[in-house]
Amino acid sequence: MTLFEADLPPMTTSIGRSTADGIWVQGYNLADELMGEVDFGSTFFLLVTGRLPTAGEGRLFNAVLVALADHGLTPSALAARLTYTGAPEAVQGAIAAGVLGAGSEFLGVFENAGRMLRAAAPSEEADDAELDRLARGIVDAHRSRGDRLPGLGHPFHKGVDPRAARLCAMAEDHGLLGPHTRLMLRVQDHATSPSGKSLPLNAGGMCGALLCDLGIDTAALRGVAVVSRAAGIVGHLAEEARAPMGRTLWHLAEREAHYRPRRASGPAARTKD
Amino acid sequence: MTLFEADLPPMTTSIGRSTADGIWVQGYNLADELMGEVDFGSTFFLLVTGRLPTAGEGRLFNAVLVALADHGLTPSALAARLTYTGAPEAVQGAIAAGVLGAGSEFLGVFENAGRMLRAAAPSEEADDAELDRLARGIVDAHRSRGDRLPGLGHPFHKGVDPRAARLCAMAEDHGLLGPHTRLMLRVQDHATSPSGKSLPLNAGGMCGALLCDLGIDTAALRGVAVVSRAAGIVGHLAEEARAPMGRTLWHLAEREAHYRPRRASGPAARTKD
Amino acid sequence: MTLFEADLPPMTTSIGRSTADGIWVQGYNLADELMGEVDFGSTFFLLVTGRLPTAGEGRLFNAVLVALADHGLTPSALAARLTYTGAPEAVQGAIAAGVLGAGSEFLGVFENAGRMLRAAAPSEEADDAELDRLARGIVDAHRSRGDRLPGLGHPFHKGVDPRAARLCAMAEDHGLLGPHTRLMLRVQDHATSPSGKSLPLNAGGMCGALLCDLGIDTAALRGVAVVSRAAGIVGHLAEEARAPMGRTLWHLAEREAHYRPRRASGPAARTKD
Amino acid sequence: MTLFEADLPPMTTSIGRSTADGIWVQGYNLADELMGEVDFGSTFFLLVTGRLPTAGEGRLFNAVLVALADHGLTPSALAARLTYTGAPEAVQGAIAAGVLGAGSEFLGVFENAGRMLRAAAPSEEADDAELDRLARGIVDAHRSRGDRLPGLGHPFHKGVDPRAARLCAMAEDHGLLGPHTRLMLRVQDHATSPSGKSLPLNAGGMCGALLCDLGIDTAALRGVAVVSRAAGIVGHLAEEARAPMGRTLWHLAEREAHYRPRRASGPAARTKD
Repeated sequence: MTLFEADLPPMTTSIGRSTADGIWVQGYNLADELMGEVDFGSTFFLLVTGRLPTAGEGRLFNAVLVALADHGLTPSALAARLTYTGAPEAVQGAIAAGVLGAGSEFLGVFENAGRMLRAAAPSEEADDAELDRLARGIVDAHRSRGDRLPGLGHPFHKGVDPRAARLCAMAEDHGLLGPHTRLMLRVQDHATSPSGKSLPLNAGGMCGALLCDLGIDTAALRGVAVVSRAAGIVGHLAEEARAPMGRTLWHLAEREAHYRPRRASGPAARTKD
Repeated sequence: MTLFEADLPPMTTSIGRSTADGIWVQGYNLADELMGEVDFGSTFFLLVTGRLPTAGEGRLFNAVLVALADHGLTPSALAARLTYTGAPEAVQGAIAAGVLGAGSEFLGVFENAGRMLRAAAPSEEADDAELDRLARGIVDAHRSRGDRLPGLGHPFHKGVDPRAARLCAMAEDHGLLGPHTRLMLRVQDHATSPSGKSLPLNAGGMCGALLCDLGIDTAALRGVAVVSRAAGIVGHLAEEARAPMGRTLWHLAEREAHYRPRRASGPAARTKD
Repeated sequence: MTLFEADLPPMTTSIGRSTADGIWVQGYNLADELMGEVDFGSTFFLLVTGRLPTAGEGRLFNAVLVALADHGLTPSALAARLTYTGAPEAVQGAIAAGVLGAGSEFLGVFENAGRMLRAAAPSEEADDAELDRLARGIVDAHRSRGDRLPGLGHPFHKGVDPRAARLCAMAEDHGLLGPHTRLMLRVQDHATSPSGKSLPLNAGGMCGALLCDLGIDTAALRGVAVVSRAAGIVGHLAEEARAPMGRTLWHLAEREAHYRPRRASGPAARTKD
Repeated sequence: MTLFEADLPPMTTSIGRSTADGIWVQGYNLADELMGEVDFGSTFFLLVTGRLPTAGEGRLFNAVLVALADHGLTPSALAARLTYTGAPEAVQGAIAAGVLGAGSEFLGVFENAGRMLRAAAPSEEADDAELDRLARGIVDAHRSRGDRLPGLGHPFHKGVDPRAARLCAMAEDHGLLGPHTRLMLRVQDHATSPSGKSLPLNAGGMCGALLCDLGIDTAALRGVAVVSRAAGIVGHLAEEARAPMGRTLWHLAEREAHYRPRRASGPAARTKD
């Protein structure tokens, strides 16, 4: 009677379960083993990977989250503020509007860099020559297709993206500079802009590479960036509630935009049933 | 020419600013002063309040975030998974769908408890008698209006919500049991269900009270819960990518639902132009 | 073993069902009885109410949808455009961002007016005196609470909202000026702004009243406005793809906003674990 | 001082503008020329294309919108209902959650079919031989890449998708069977599933082709489907308010899902700072 196939896979989950007196997350007792014992960033790592990070992994993962949390009045922050202007009683909607801009142009870079590196599949033991070979392959493939290399270059931070530099230093300090990040650094060495300028690694590219080395699934890479940025958006919305700019921005748009209707010839151009 | 009033307030922000070589968050240099120096939870606290937490505040705020990060296959997690089924290439949309359910029935409780406590405005110096008086006022006002008290009772955790108990103990340990939380505990003492049963404080109520004491703006209370739960949702989506249940859930709904069209009398009932 | 009560209600739906060779909507065969036979607005009416509209009802419902479809560069349209700037490959996300602003400040007015009128419950046979009495009661109750009356006044259209006037005339022409709309017109007669000026009925208030008379459920009132406005948003996004303004708007915001970090005293103010 | 380039394009819009006594949409006076004069579907066409449709175009565009408005308890409808369960006071959020699933797996097919056809660029005068040549090129290219052809085949409607058949007949009747639709029909003739079965054109493929012939921008194709489906979602939410299934679905998921935590070895596996 149903139109669906009978043999759909069963539903299984490893994430959470509640009983009358306990809440379990990835096999840990939430109240006894996680709350007060591990920080939120490390709990997020656990939710995504199924294991708690080591001390160094936890620090690095937290630093990635801190790095991406805010970048000022971005299109995402503005979209969230404008949505709050219309629906201040439903803050979750304004946050959602803010994260919906995390696509190919901004935070998606993160995932694209990760996909590119995982496709190259550098092994744990890859030496410099091997990484150089892979990096050249990546750069050449993108150049021949006319594609931009994800994770390189930044509209503001043209010299060095300070977040990328800091993360790289931290990864070295903690012995967590794995094959994906080492490959990403080689890609940076070989890449140049169409006009021949060097293209420094940006925060998104570095974060994507580090998260690959930390074992974050490709499907979760963009999600890590989204949770991080959601924290920044909540900061913007708390400010919007105290010192609103939404209506001023609306005003600016109405005042600055030129209205040029496409209708050429007035009512006669209109066709009606 | 424009229809808007001329005297809209100027736009000001305290949150973030980028220059060619630096990124600033609430006056801190992101790469030098925050990354690797403070954890993500504490950075979130900074974004919302404009100051870094003390050590104890940071631990408590992290514990609140950990407490709310996941509660298994909630309607939010399921909505996110179903959205991922249709649009796996736009993970930000599935996360947004998940957080959009953070309204009055679930995570909004958080904000409602905070509003209730802030409306009572317990002072820092309030003694037990004063808090008792305020608590009785709150309970009586809700009872006379027939409203549920936010933050009390839980469909699963009927005895004690283990998360609330843990947070309470942590707040005491860190000397952070402030007037809002002490008032919330008194409300718990006085509240009973319509059938006369005691109503234990739940995680949402405890978190709302603690965040008031931590100085989180009312407008940001629900946002804190949303960021926390977003981490859980990313965990669910990473799992959905590996071991999908979206189509099985769809199948279950189609199979279990009864179809009862409201149309009584067939084609003749239809009116057309 | 499960924590849920055993006696949840069964799932039933009247809306749609597919078989191997037919698709049914509210009991109508979609391809044979609806496509090409009734317009989209009337199909929307069917989806929400479970019956097809009469000819006049169909025209009026379509006119309501047309009335609300666009209002220029609103915060909703701008939020959608900014989201598209970040994620042009996921247009559904930009549309979602646009509709998320349909809250208490703008399109929610629609629902609030409907709730207000339905709470007064004017009967089909109510005469002018009875409606006057109800209208005075509504106006007095709002005034005594210090609340704005939903559906009255408009920041631009201070004399007459031309959409409200047109809808009123259409409803009269089609014999569809029911008790909710007649009550709303009386509320307009009695209402004045705090400064004593008359407050003309706006499009939202008129639409809310008419939809009550058309039998649209209160829970669907805001949804009608959302679908209508979604059409306008798709128009804005099609234009954004051809002639983008998202980055210019971002630029304007960055340029016009003042940065005033709240951090008073520099690094020393920072507390670390 | 700003980091943005000085030469961003000016903001221009053709869509809407308000003055103190008039609202203009694409150059038409909304209240006088559109409301009551053209139906909502045709207004949507105007918003997207900048011109009103002819009578036949208006009927066909309305039929496309009707065709896609509902397909029963889809993942989108379920996500919307689950979101409503958590936040019934913010219906716009539930609608947004529903449309966010309009991605690559379901309604995005629409856009993909349109992109495929526009990339082939069939001319208005293309004869059967020319269309055959283009269709074979499309089929061969997809087969060699191992890609599915968008717009062909359906999990339920394995013989004929009745919506596609109806739309095709309507387009013929109105003389609107243009080169993109004729090409799509040829693609259907040449395409077979991996197991050699014929793959009938589905509603999404037919709608995508027809909208190309109607001159809808590629960037708006998915948006047309989203507005259509939003109407269905509002129908589901109106029903959810009357006869909820959200909690039952949650219950089913909790009851049917198996919990298998990934944590192998208990507390000792946990690493702490």
